[in-house]
Amino acid sequence: MIPLHQAISIVMESGNRTTTPEKVDFIQSLGRVLAANVSSDLNMPPFNKTAVDGYACRMADAYQELEVVEVIPAGKAPSKVINQGQCAKIMTGAMIPQGADCVLMVEDTKEISENRIAFTGKSVKSNICLLGEDIKKNDIALTKGTTIEPHHIAIMAAVGCTQPEVSAKPRVAILSTGDELVEPSIAPAMGQIRNSNGHQLIAQVIKAGGEPHYFGIIEDSEDATRAAIAKAIAENDMVLLTGGVSMGDFDFVPKIMAELGIKIHFDSIAVQPGKPTTFGTVNGKLIFGLPGNPVSSLFQFDLLVKPAIRKALGASETTPSTVKLPLGSCYKRKKTERLALIPVEINDKGEVNPVNFNGSAHIFAIANANAVALIPQGVAELQKGDFVDVRPL
Amino acid sequence: MIPLHQAISIVMESGNRTTTPEKVDFIQSLGRVLAANVSSDLNMPPFNKTAVDGYACRMADAYQELEVVEVIPAGKAPSKVINQGQCAKIMTGAMIPQGADCVLMVEDTKEISENRIAFTGKSVKSNICLLGEDIKKNDIALTKGTTIEPHHIAIMAAVGCTQPEVSAKPRVAILSTGDELVEPSIAPAMGQIRNSNGHQLIAQVIKAGGEPHYFGIIEDSEDATRAAIAKAIAENDMVLLTGGVSMGDFDFVPKIMAELGIKIHFDSIAVQPGKPTTFGTVNGKLIFGLPGNPVSSLFQFDLLVKPAIRKALGASETTPSTVKLPLGSCYKRKKTERLALIPVEINDKGEVNPVNFNGSAHIFAIANANAVALIPQGVAELQKGDFVDVRPL
Repeated sequence: MIPLHQAISIVMESGNRTTTPEKVDFIQSLGRVLAANVSSDLNMPPFNKTAVDGYACRMADAYQELEVVEVIPAGKAPSKVINQGQCAKIMTGAMIPQGADCVLMVEDTKEISENRIAFTGKSVKSNICLLGEDIKKNDIALTKGTTIEPHHIAIMAAVGCTQPEVSAKPRVAILSTGDELVEPSIAPAMGQIRNSNGHQLIAQVIKAGGEPHYFGIIEDSEDATRAAIAKAIAENDMVLLTGGVSMGDFDFVPKIMAELGIKIHFDSIAVQPGKPTTFGTVNGKLIFGLPGNPVSSLFQFDLLVKPAIRKALGASETTPSTVKLPLGSCYKRKKTERLALIPVEINDKGEVNPVNFNGSAHIFAIANANAVALIPQGVAELQKGDFVDVRPL
Repeated sequence: MIPLHQAISIVMESGNRTTTPEKVDFIQSLGRVLAANVSSDLNMPPFNKTAVDGYACRMADAYQELEVVEVIPAGKAPSKVINQGQCAKIMTGAMIPQGADCVLMVEDTKEISENRIAFTGKSVKSNICLLGEDIKKNDIALTKGTTIEPHHIAIMAAVGCTQPEVSAKPRVAILSTGDELVEPSIAPAMGQIRNSNGHQLIAQVIKAGGEPHYFGIIEDSEDATRAAIAKAIAENDMVLLTGGVSMGDFDFVPKIMAELGIKIHFDSIAVQPGKPTTFGTVNGKLIFGLPGNPVSSLFQFDLLVKPAIRKALGASETTPSTVKLPLGSCYKRKKTERLALIPVEINDKGEVNPVNFNGSAHIFAIANANAVALIPQGVAELQKGDFVDVRPL
């Protein structure tokens, strides 16, 4: 049994950047991870442009009556040079005409007669955005490793990157073991239970940015299990096994893992729930034996598998994975040898309240949970208002 | 000019739950919003089952040698009744045989001879999960309005809900106005600029749970703009317009909105950036005139449009939309009449640092931003360590 932080370190040191880049349409890249920098193909602004609606003129002429020589809408190049005593009516975003070095805001002007205006404001400002002030041609607009959000799509649009290179999704095999399992569409017979864990893992893999490959419920025999695990390793970057990691007679998975040359790095973690979690590697592939209970499996995926998927994608995460929030009620436990993982609900005041929870098989308890709190080893009691480490689910 | 909180209230009071439910495969329902409660079709556990690997026996017999009468793997019904002095070897998750009222953990037993074991532990616990202890048949497992996360997929799997009813995605039209705009794949000619805003909005609509319908760049004439807006209203639940809401000659959108019978509820908000934001309604449809600058548009979507989409979906959000985090550096500004929206980066210590920012057209500045901080009206200066309201992007 090793501490959680050590388990996380072992997994992160074992994992590599495993995926190759692929090009996708920029709108489809939402949520993907950039595999290469995105550079600008132009200067931004591409020309000196006005930040306001108004009249472009020479700053030196601002306090005299001005002749309006043309109207410059956004999207059209000016046709005239601005000379002394002249100005051009100009719309926000339009190009500053040659000769002008400021724009008088339309609100600060009055029309004197047809084609003549005067400034009525107090002080003259430039109101010009200079060529290349935001970004210069060939500058890096977005860095490799960025997880693409809507504002990154805007940046891609601005620099003409309509086919960004993103990391291919790592292939993650999901194998469920246990003769008692049936698929969700089947009404369980006596002694059977639906496979909730396997489908939860499919959804977790999708959300983490991986590509799930569901191998279904593996027949509970040594040969069938060995064959399925071998195939899963051959075809995927990571393999997730659920069930089959406790001490029962039918739980031969650890034996098979050894036979397949999988080096086991740990087989239990000092957490509650989720202690019987196995991690091994073979040929650069990561193999996780996750607990059979959906709640344990949910948390162990979040703590161990998700970071490995993000690393395989080359993601440079910026948002912290845990936040410190105050407890909304007191918390007590008896045994303190392990770090406790508690499903909690963060309320709209930002307070953390544990959900009512029968144990790691009690998946229904976490319908309303939106985060998991980490209670350190040795801590038996916390008061309302004490801060705890919380990971959003 | 109205305060931001009032603008948000007006939008939220105007918006209705507009979408109809549709059935989807449960794995595909990830990220969607439940349109109906999900009930359990069974008791969970469906039978009294063991929480551990061990020997099922009568608690009264625990301290005597026991005869092993059968082996009960998970998934198979017991075939024998446990009588006095007897036990059955049993695997985690398997059904408790009739007669037994506890399970001795395998770690707390020893084999005496073939088919005979003895308890070596200190105290006997039940180790039984009772029928219906987690959920009872017809109980509500997931409530309407839940945004579906991986742990909800596990719950659906457990209760056999493979075709949940989710809210259809609200249809959101996106119209860009401005003759200076060209699409991202085109190299802008003199005086032109790429349409980053429209594509950012497409991505924001997708992320918020809506279905974007991009109308492209509308020709900058009154007739074309009127026709496009009328079509967008007819075919969609919401319409987003970008550009065309400041004071230039070619900015006739407010006039067209009035002609189309759109009731304007506000046309500016006391925020910086994002002041020229228009909101109107017609026939229960919501019409947003968003600022032409991508940074302003990004924030105004987040504050006004996203909540309207979530309401249309019937989502009961549980996670707070803002969190209070400490500033990592001091912050100053000159004008304080408006609430300031500042793009910030939350670092791995949970500190908030404003990103370097030229103004609302400076989309490149926010490549590394992962949140927006709200600095209240009247506040000119904040110190390192002061807490600010932050919304993750």
